Amino acid sequence: MLDLSALKFDKNGLIPVVVQDFNTNEILMLAYMNKESINLTIETGYMHYFSRSRNKIWKKGETSGNFQKVKALYLDCDGDAILAIVEQTGVACHTGSKTCFFTNIFGEDKKSKVDILFKLIETINDRKKNKVEGSYTCYLFEKGLDKILKKVGEEATEVVIAAKNGSKEEVIYEVSDLIYHLSVLLSYFDMDWSDIFKSLEQRRK
Amino acid sequence: MLDLSALKFDKNGLIPVVVQDFNTNEILMLAYMNKESINLTIETGYMHYFSRSRNKIWKKGETSGNFQKVKALYLDCDGDAILAIVEQTGVACHTGSKTCFFTNIFGEDKKSKVDILFKLIETINDRKKNKVEGSYTCYLFEKGLDKILKKVGEEATEVVIAAKNGSKEEVIYEVSDLIYHLSVLLSYFDMDWSDIFKSLEQRRK
Repeated sequence: MLDLSALKFDKNGLIPVVVQDFNTNEILMLAYMNKESINLTIETGYMHYFSRSRNKIWKKGETSGNFQKVKALYLDCDGDAILAIVEQTGVACHTGSKTCFFTNIFGEDKKSKVDILFKLIETINDRKKNKVEGSYTCYLFEKGLDKILKKVGEEATEVVIAAKNGSKEEVIYEVSDLIYHLSVLLSYFDMDWSDIFKSLEQRRK
Repeated sequence: MLDLSALKFDKNGLIPVVVQDFNTNEILMLAYMNKESINLTIETGYMHYFSRSRNKIWKKGETSGNFQKVKALYLDCDGDAILAIVEQTGVACHTGSKTCFFTNIFGEDKKSKVDILFKLIETINDRKKNKVEGSYTCYLFEKGLDKILKKVGEEATEVVIAAKNGSKEEVIYEVSDLIYHLSVLLSYFDMDWSDIFKSLEQRRK
């Protein structure tokens, strides 16, 4: 059992939990835990919360099947909030949205686009399994590894030409093309960008 | 003034706010807002919170200089939590840590590594400005654009060879090398991976 002495629960015995998707870094929801739900989470490996409206513990996904596998828990500097990193099955929100925070109330819809790399791989993995008429990605997989690699070489050369032209716009366009084809290559080998990020992180140390 | 009628404040007139870094998607902190601090945030463009311990409104960074420029606000599906996307000056935590959630209490330190691309560009930008003895990145900038582009070509070729060897490990290693050199190229043109992600997102639609 985890030592919960550093955690500061409110007068109802609850602590707010920010829930973040491990793969995309998206914020999925904000919920509350009591001691028992924290222990259940750690024992079972799946997120359990305390429902303030129903006044009871619930396992996320118990009715929807959209479980959250816990990867890690973090405590904030003053001990009164938890960050949970989870692997989300399906969607987090009961409305069918991936995240509960889908209502933009101020500013442009400016969520960081960093999760595009994961969405890209998801789409590519789908094309690898399911043939879609007229899909360029399907065409690449049909042609096979040599074709994918020829495109990697071609796009890298186009990056070089764009940079020699001194055009930022061209560089953006060609690097994006290269990233797309590298994503196809990673998918071909059943890998994704997490493998690359882990490698870059290790070599940075 | 923003229409706050959809927001459900607690009996103290507060609503919890999850604060996320626009560039890296990191969760920086969890804080609370009342109506007035929301309005101040929108009027000034900088995050204002309500301190429960000091019982007053405070502008984040007013003493430390570590301001948070608000990019967007989202409301969750049941209206009782806000997600704020911010551009953080310096660090968010009073301890000097980038995020308040630095204490790992369960699981491996498995935060998604997607922010490595931004850390990489930060380091590269620093090397571009400040000469560091023995730094390979400094060497690349000294040699200039042609050298950077030769390396992009070379690393792309090494990706091809690794894939033809059928080795996942080699592919990971060489794609990582290519991503590093592409990061140097982006930095050379005063760009970063956000530019690429925006482009990929637009072309996906």
